[in-house]
Amino acid sequence: MLTRSSSQSLTEQLSGRFAQRIRDRLLAPGARLPSVRQCAQQQGVSPSTVVAAYDQLLAQGLVEARKNRGFFVRELARREPAAVRPGAGSRAGATDAAPRPSPVDATALIRGMFQGFDGKPQPGMGAFPPQWLESAFMPAAVRKVTGARALQAVSLQYGEPMGDSALRLALSRKLAAMNVHAGPDHIITTVGATHALDIVSRALLRAGDPVMVEEPGWAVEFARLTALGMRLLPVPRRADGPDLDVMARYCEVHRPKLYVSVSVLHNPTGYCLSPGSAHRLLQLAQRHDFHVVEDDTYSHIAPEHATRLCALDGLQRTIHVSGFAKILAPNWRVGFLAANPALIERLLDTKLLSTLTTPALLERALALCIEQGQLRRHAERIRTRLDAARSRSVKLALNAGCRFAAEPAGLFGWVETGVDTDALAQRMLDEGYLLAPGALFHAERKPSTLMRINFATTQDAAFWRKYAELVRRM
Amino acid sequence: MLTRSSSQSLTEQLSGRFAQRIRDRLLAPGARLPSVRQCAQQQGVSPSTVVAAYDQLLAQGLVEARKNRGFFVRELARREPAAVRPGAGSRAGATDAAPRPSPVDATALIRGMFQGFDGKPQPGMGAFPPQWLESAFMPAAVRKVTGARALQAVSLQYGEPMGDSALRLALSRKLAAMNVHAGPDHIITTVGATHALDIVSRALLRAGDPVMVEEPGWAVEFARLTALGMRLLPVPRRADGPDLDVMARYCEVHRPKLYVSVSVLHNPTGYCLSPGSAHRLLQLAQRHDFHVVEDDTYSHIAPEHATRLCALDGLQRTIHVSGFAKILAPNWRVGFLAANPALIERLLDTKLLSTLTTPALLERALALCIEQGQLRRHAERIRTRLDAARSRSVKLALNAGCRFAAEPAGLFGWVETGVDTDALAQRMLDEGYLLAPGALFHAERKPSTLMRINFATTQDAAFWRKYAELVRRM
Repeated sequence: MLTRSSSQSLTEQLSGRFAQRIRDRLLAPGARLPSVRQCAQQQGVSPSTVVAAYDQLLAQGLVEARKNRGFFVRELARREPAAVRPGAGSRAGATDAAPRPSPVDATALIRGMFQGFDGKPQPGMGAFPPQWLESAFMPAAVRKVTGARALQAVSLQYGEPMGDSALRLALSRKLAAMNVHAGPDHIITTVGATHALDIVSRALLRAGDPVMVEEPGWAVEFARLTALGMRLLPVPRRADGPDLDVMARYCEVHRPKLYVSVSVLHNPTGYCLSPGSAHRLLQLAQRHDFHVVEDDTYSHIAPEHATRLCALDGLQRTIHVSGFAKILAPNWRVGFLAANPALIERLLDTKLLSTLTTPALLERALALCIEQGQLRRHAERIRTRLDAARSRSVKLALNAGCRFAAEPAGLFGWVETGVDTDALAQRMLDEGYLLAPGALFHAERKPSTLMRINFATTQDAAFWRKYAELVRRM
Repeated sequence: MLTRSSSQSLTEQLSGRFAQRIRDRLLAPGARLPSVRQCAQQQGVSPSTVVAAYDQLLAQGLVEARKNRGFFVRELARREPAAVRPGAGSRAGATDAAPRPSPVDATALIRGMFQGFDGKPQPGMGAFPPQWLESAFMPAAVRKVTGARALQAVSLQYGEPMGDSALRLALSRKLAAMNVHAGPDHIITTVGATHALDIVSRALLRAGDPVMVEEPGWAVEFARLTALGMRLLPVPRRADGPDLDVMARYCEVHRPKLYVSVSVLHNPTGYCLSPGSAHRLLQLAQRHDFHVVEDDTYSHIAPEHATRLCALDGLQRTIHVSGFAKILAPNWRVGFLAANPALIERLLDTKLLSTLTTPALLERALALCIEQGQLRRHAERIRTRLDAARSRSVKLALNAGCRFAAEPAGLFGWVETGVDTDALAQRMLDEGYLLAPGALFHAERKPSTLMRINFATTQDAAFWRKYAELVRRM
């Protein structure tokens, strides 16, 4: 909140808050600032204070005025005006060399998620609160692999290109229990599931290739493929799977080489693929000769006997990707991919070219956690806790006037708010809450009245009261 | 060596050895097998044994016969014939989807370096032997960051997008001592220097862009840029720096956006950039508006007061990249980049899209090693040891008939052998030695009589005797 008693003027406080939000990308380039009248009303200040604050942002090069349309956040490459920083003259040329604007829109949420919200649980987060992940077995596993001798053995050489062999063996067994059969030699460890998806798209596609993605879908995936120069073909995701008619038309017109899918506990809807839909999708892939990368990031909290494309297809034209950020340790960045022998060498080359090897220390500790069954039991405990949290969160959301656009399941709820969630997210930020507006989950970032909530971080009645109050006022 | 007493026939032993080497990429796709007569002579077997062994490789789909030219290793995408593996019919389509052949040539050495040579020190390696890197301070630093509370704090959240702040502060101070001035907010940690170079090229270039590289130069860099679809413009590297006339011509014709350089202790020659050359290079960069990424991987063993482009230019159009694989712990995969404020956001986005964050546990342990001065003293000890090793290695090499194509310095020697080093490397593999043939350091993998040796792993007189004997026979 702005305060009159502060040593800073109201104008400075207001422009400072916008400036910080623009720098943190919580206001994305191209986003429109509220109108002067709206802003004055929302913040309880005079219109002249808002005008003065916007003028300061203009002078700092952070926003631009568009005739009769208002103020907009400037593109990154056009900020940093010469007046502000010495030596910018020579940098200006450097900046012009940018081949394209950064995919800032899509990284805004991500960067927001990682910084500046240490205090309260955030509804827009994509992970469990750290307290949920605490365990005794994880530190014990780390102690085992960091004894001086074990530590030096694992640290002082580059290590196995495919990743720690103990982990790959443990993963192979874990996959077999899900009817996905891949030997340790067909598994490659990565820096989290994100890196695995990155490797797959770099190995199988080249710039300009069309690639099918789910919509709604995960913003980082859209941004990454776009940054690599791919053309996104968004396939509507239904409760039982992707819209196969749309896919078939894409195949005929664009001949895409890859489809990127979260089959189980889809982000953001929580949908799980039905067996029939899976079967028909694989027939389509066979007929039109495309690969499928199945991102199984939420496997640890998935329903038993969930349908996976990789299990049906036997990794023929599917590639399995998953990781342990959601269930064990987000910062360990341990993920993996499993693929058929004909692809594995090419994928391994791509891993080598991007990071050489991956840190085996954490991989080996993770192998211990898996081998001893501790991770499985830990996941069961978290599932039980999540079920209870989801019930409470759904009740609170419904009471606050939300409607669920998808049957609540897994970690995320896909919620219809009835108002523009981009604008709502800005207002909730003023109150210290980070939301995940629906636009982030659309390939073209279309304005949306939907938002994603995290069931584990929306337990607080105070959040829902504030939410309902702001929605009413919009 | 092939043995007559083995349970396997000589034919099986010989074909098995070639098959293994092809699978391990120590014989790259497109490489020619020795003629039947040569091979029979080298291995001390009859020509009919060689013919039978080559026939087995043909049947396995690993090699192909070209009329009147002999046998060649098949491209990866064309291996795995239907007869060998069930279900290959449907995979064949999948394999055809490959947009281009993998950059296998260039990853061959790398993969060889990482596997199967646990026993003796290998002349072709790019790192110090693990024994050289042993220390007491590294395990102590790890113990400090893996106490249960510290471990959970650092593991259970995604962490800072830019990387651990303690490490970035330590790096900022370390860089300042080299006259490279970058605040912690202009430093991004990465999964080794390789990842940093990957991030820079992805952020600044798009597929099809021309990029200037040094020749000879580091094979992984060529391979990575090629895999990203860039056009390589090789600039001859001289003792005092790159050939600026060649660069100027490239600039006029191709307008490249980036130059990738190892200024100090260049790999493979050991050259260091002269101040005059550095100054003229930066003038050229200014005139033709390109960026320079300066890969300072060998900074820990570099001469004091070495000239760095980043120090001269103040990170205006230069980007600094380095890592700790060479001096502390290759498998920790901790590297970083430092860049000017106008670029840092775009680089950070690219990091997020490729791996989200990086493991802070190892970053924090590294920060401790740097802060307490232990890493600096460790590096001094290794430099002293390397100086002694280099003297001995140079003497042995000269006695074995080598000539140094560049003044010996740093970790690597660039050695003129007078024979085709691709063929020599295959013969030395038979004896259990991995070489780094000169062709690997050329963008187009031209045959070469040069090779790179690692001074720390060529201390063994037995290796040089075998080398001299084989060169004599070629």
